[in-house]
Amino acid sequence: MYRTHTCGELRIEDVSKEVMLSGWVQRIRDKGGMLWIDLRDRYGITQLIFNESKTDADIIRKARTFGREYVIQATGIVTERFSKNPNIPTGEIEIVVNKLTVLNPSKVPPFTIENNTDGGEDLRMKFRYLDLRRSVVKKNIQLRHKLMQHTRSYLDGQQFIEIETPVLIKSTPEGARDFVVPSRMNPGEFYALPQSPQTFKQLLMISGFDKYYQIVKCFRDEDLRADRQPEFTQIDCEMSFVTRDDVLDTFEGLIKHLFSNVLDVTLDTFPKMTYDDALSIYGTDKPDIRFEMKFVELKDLVEGKGFRVFDDAGLVVGISVEGCAGYSRKQLDALTDYVKRPQVGAKGLVYVKYNEDGTFKSSVDKFFNQEQLAYWAERFQARPGDLMLILAGDSSTTRTALSLLRLHMGKTLELMNKKDFLPLWIVDFPLLEWDEETHRYYAMHHPFTSPKPEDIEKLETDPDKAKANAYDLVINGVEIGGGSIRIHDRKLQQKMFDTLGYTKEESNQQFGFLLNAFNYGAPPHGGIAFGFDRLCALFGGMDSIRDFIAFPKNNSGRDVMIDSPASISEEQLRELSIKMR
Amino acid sequence: MYRTHTCGELRIEDVSKEVMLSGWVQRIRDKGGMLWIDLRDRYGITQLIFNESKTDADIIRKARTFGREYVIQATGIVTERFSKNPNIPTGEIEIVVNKLTVLNPSKVPPFTIENNTDGGEDLRMKFRYLDLRRSVVKKNIQLRHKLMQHTRSYLDGQQFIEIETPVLIKSTPEGARDFVVPSRMNPGEFYALPQSPQTFKQLLMISGFDKYYQIVKCFRDEDLRADRQPEFTQIDCEMSFVTRDDVLDTFEGLIKHLFSNVLDVTLDTFPKMTYDDALSIYGTDKPDIRFEMKFVELKDLVEGKGFRVFDDAGLVVGISVEGCAGYSRKQLDALTDYVKRPQVGAKGLVYVKYNEDGTFKSSVDKFFNQEQLAYWAERFQARPGDLMLILAGDSSTTRTALSLLRLHMGKTLELMNKKDFLPLWIVDFPLLEWDEETHRYYAMHHPFTSPKPEDIEKLETDPDKAKANAYDLVINGVEIGGGSIRIHDRKLQQKMFDTLGYTKEESNQQFGFLLNAFNYGAPPHGGIAFGFDRLCALFGGMDSIRDFIAFPKNNSGRDVMIDSPASISEEQLRELSIKMR
Repeated sequence: MYRTHTCGELRIEDVSKEVMLSGWVQRIRDKGGMLWIDLRDRYGITQLIFNESKTDADIIRKARTFGREYVIQATGIVTERFSKNPNIPTGEIEIVVNKLTVLNPSKVPPFTIENNTDGGEDLRMKFRYLDLRRSVVKKNIQLRHKLMQHTRSYLDGQQFIEIETPVLIKSTPEGARDFVVPSRMNPGEFYALPQSPQTFKQLLMISGFDKYYQIVKCFRDEDLRADRQPEFTQIDCEMSFVTRDDVLDTFEGLIKHLFSNVLDVTLDTFPKMTYDDALSIYGTDKPDIRFEMKFVELKDLVEGKGFRVFDDAGLVVGISVEGCAGYSRKQLDALTDYVKRPQVGAKGLVYVKYNEDGTFKSSVDKFFNQEQLAYWAERFQARPGDLMLILAGDSSTTRTALSLLRLHMGKTLELMNKKDFLPLWIVDFPLLEWDEETHRYYAMHHPFTSPKPEDIEKLETDPDKAKANAYDLVINGVEIGGGSIRIHDRKLQQKMFDTLGYTKEESNQQFGFLLNAFNYGAPPHGGIAFGFDRLCALFGGMDSIRDFIAFPKNNSGRDVMIDSPASISEEQLRELSIKMR
Repeated sequence: MYRTHTCGELRIEDVSKEVMLSGWVQRIRDKGGMLWIDLRDRYGITQLIFNESKTDADIIRKARTFGREYVIQATGIVTERFSKNPNIPTGEIEIVVNKLTVLNPSKVPPFTIENNTDGGEDLRMKFRYLDLRRSVVKKNIQLRHKLMQHTRSYLDGQQFIEIETPVLIKSTPEGARDFVVPSRMNPGEFYALPQSPQTFKQLLMISGFDKYYQIVKCFRDEDLRADRQPEFTQIDCEMSFVTRDDVLDTFEGLIKHLFSNVLDVTLDTFPKMTYDDALSIYGTDKPDIRFEMKFVELKDLVEGKGFRVFDDAGLVVGISVEGCAGYSRKQLDALTDYVKRPQVGAKGLVYVKYNEDGTFKSSVDKFFNQEQLAYWAERFQARPGDLMLILAGDSSTTRTALSLLRLHMGKTLELMNKKDFLPLWIVDFPLLEWDEETHRYYAMHHPFTSPKPEDIEKLETDPDKAKANAYDLVINGVEIGGGSIRIHDRKLQQKMFDTLGYTKEESNQQFGFLLNAFNYGAPPHGGIAFGFDRLCALFGGMDSIRDFIAFPKNNSGRDVMIDSPASISEEQLRELSIKMR
């Protein structure tokens, strides 16, 4: 036996019990006559005490040889502490040790196992098993577990069935790049790892499982941007005989359940906003609605006054920032620099200060007089003391730039409280995107997404205008999940493939099984998938998903701890009938 | 809206409600003036009724166009049935339909969607989504879900944390063949898919997570024997600060919990048997103990009587089969044929009938007289009416052959009731196996398994004799799970790698991260993994795991439904820096 109790469990009621604990040496304090050890395990920290006047000298001698992170076993009597520690649950007691064993010594760790560690990112990733001992990281993994549990309990309660779909599937040209797996038994052929279980969950609906879910690993061989992982986890769900609002209600329920059970936060009904509105009001389909600063368009007001920048622009659009009319030259220059960064992409910034005295001061005073600026202010619903920031240019770039400037102002003014959670459904996405380079349409969501019923005929006449029966859930400006009502009609699915430029052979070779399945009584169905890593990060109040994955990979897709990927033997290559180029 | 209720939920209390149902046409009965449709969904079957005297003629006309597996929506009034069906929960009511819509028609399915289908294995696999509609298959998948849920609820209750380990890891030479994944971003390098999360779960113990579990996909690129899958699911668990019996108690609890909650079966304490005893008593480390027929060794009794077969044999061993002394010549010949099959491998079979009158009749009467045979019978504890079956030869082959004969007799005599569940822990496995071909030791379990503490020094002196602190759980002759107490000492792990013939470079390159982790306070730990597919099959009372996997692969590792694996494009190969040989 290694322990009678964990290091988190003893209380004042246990005083005078003989107990045995095992754990890690977190800290040793040696005051000569007295010596204390903080013993740590997953459940907490318990103080061990060694008193020269009472404890056997051999035991104290042994304790003095310990270093941080030694694994030890201690037997002793639970005793009330003289000076209690109200910050930890075991803080009222300590163990007077009468037997002490080293279970495993430890070298000095390459960084301190403390919340504020001296270890850099690279070192911590190489020794991830030590990094995971730090309570900040450990808590993230525990939070992830809790979110998993509550996700399952909600979905189980809603009669969803968890069904595992295959990991070794088939490569498809649509979407991101697949990871592939050469088949030894079928030389020249490859499996692919799933980017999502999309077609399988649709087949499960055709099988009649009615409500499916899975918390499942997915894979994308992308050039990793910061905070993307080649393998990631999805809460993947699908339902039959549902309309869009059935799906939204069910999963609004899930998200509320998670917030309530994990964070004790009660959320109001989630508002819905169309994709078009999101773009015109916030310049993005992932708006952070924790603060206002809605976009205001000015083109009609500002045209023909001799200011070329506005006259030539497709779009003149701005935001009004409350209480910032007092911004200095330097502050305004910094904002101009911000919008001119290549990642933001604006050519310049026009500002109008609505001074407290009711006058205006702008960077375009040469072209616009006080009266005209007053009209702008009226449209902005600005008040004295506010600062109007205006961008101009082509529609898409300008919207994006202003949406970034809006977030920048929100951050600067601390309007984005990590404890506030503002969910928002974005609906009515475009069905298709035209790609100039390859000169074809791509599915904005994926090729299985249904057009809105009233837009089906636009697939023929006006594909650009067709809206999809698709939806995203955005919380605090982060896309948490997305889904759609799917096509369940073979002819419509075939037309969709046609519109996307697949030949009949291609669509049959890639998705013949699905088209065929639609022949045998496919029910209306739809679903959603949530990015589970991202959801964990949101709940944990952090930006990076890496902190919520036990063993993440770095930005080159490497696991630096196990040093993977790595070369394999010539014999393995030969067995797989492949060789390197 | 598609439905107000499911097809499994309406009862006599609902009579006279207006309801809307959606589902599949299971069966149509047309008696001229009356027509009935059985409407099916995941939750049940509800009868729709159309009466020429009451129902709108257009609706009846439409209903008559339906075929099996049409997806339809019906609105109508719940009515008490004239002739009730006590076999289904909805059997007291039917729906008098007043509105009928086809949601999706269906071609005639390639096989009937009934428990006794006319579809062969190949056809059902190709149309797996239709096969899954059959309630026998659907029930298996639902059983799997239930087992998953109860596994999680038990382990959550025991403070286990579910942690996802990576799927893209590193290839190791030990064990079965790995599936590998070429890395595009790291040309010439490969990930491997995990055969199990073994090293990661050990690192999680080193991280201090104390109790870990995961229901996780694992991968083995083996030449598939019948009923093996290249991807399979494991309940994977690990615990810190535990002895063997702590692990066995915890997981005996899990298995009892599953039997009690899923099958309403209460299991007694699981007996433990050493590997050596299992081999000498049952000839196998996976004994089915639902019936006795224990092995009895006779060598000392039968030697030197002139019967060369016995005199030359390393082992003479038999079983006594109750009440079979009356077996005919033909039956005995059939048993001889059975043991001589190449898969069984015996050279012949000796029988001794213990006749009801107390005399003996044997196939070796020439060499052994009645008195001698009486001694045999005594050792067998046989009684008049029993049949003794004896094999002779070299120890290992003979034991295996007799264990197969024992199972054959058990099956013939119907001693293996599918409703009886007899679990058994097998303990004290050998640590190592010597391989004559490669002239080296292999780890019987895996290289991380700890020797029994008292056998550690045998690693140097007598590796063959060292026992492992390893255990398997066997139920009804099927290996359900296995595990071990792991090595947590760096030196011992290094010695183990040495014994297995790894060079220092090899062990460092493959497992350096683990050896290194042992330097920083690795706690004593151990764990277990259960074959989840196999467990589902056991609970479902079936032999094949394939019936419990939604989308299984065939014996060539192919998914015939999606036609995978498949060739990939030249561009994909080029991006991955590989080409075909």
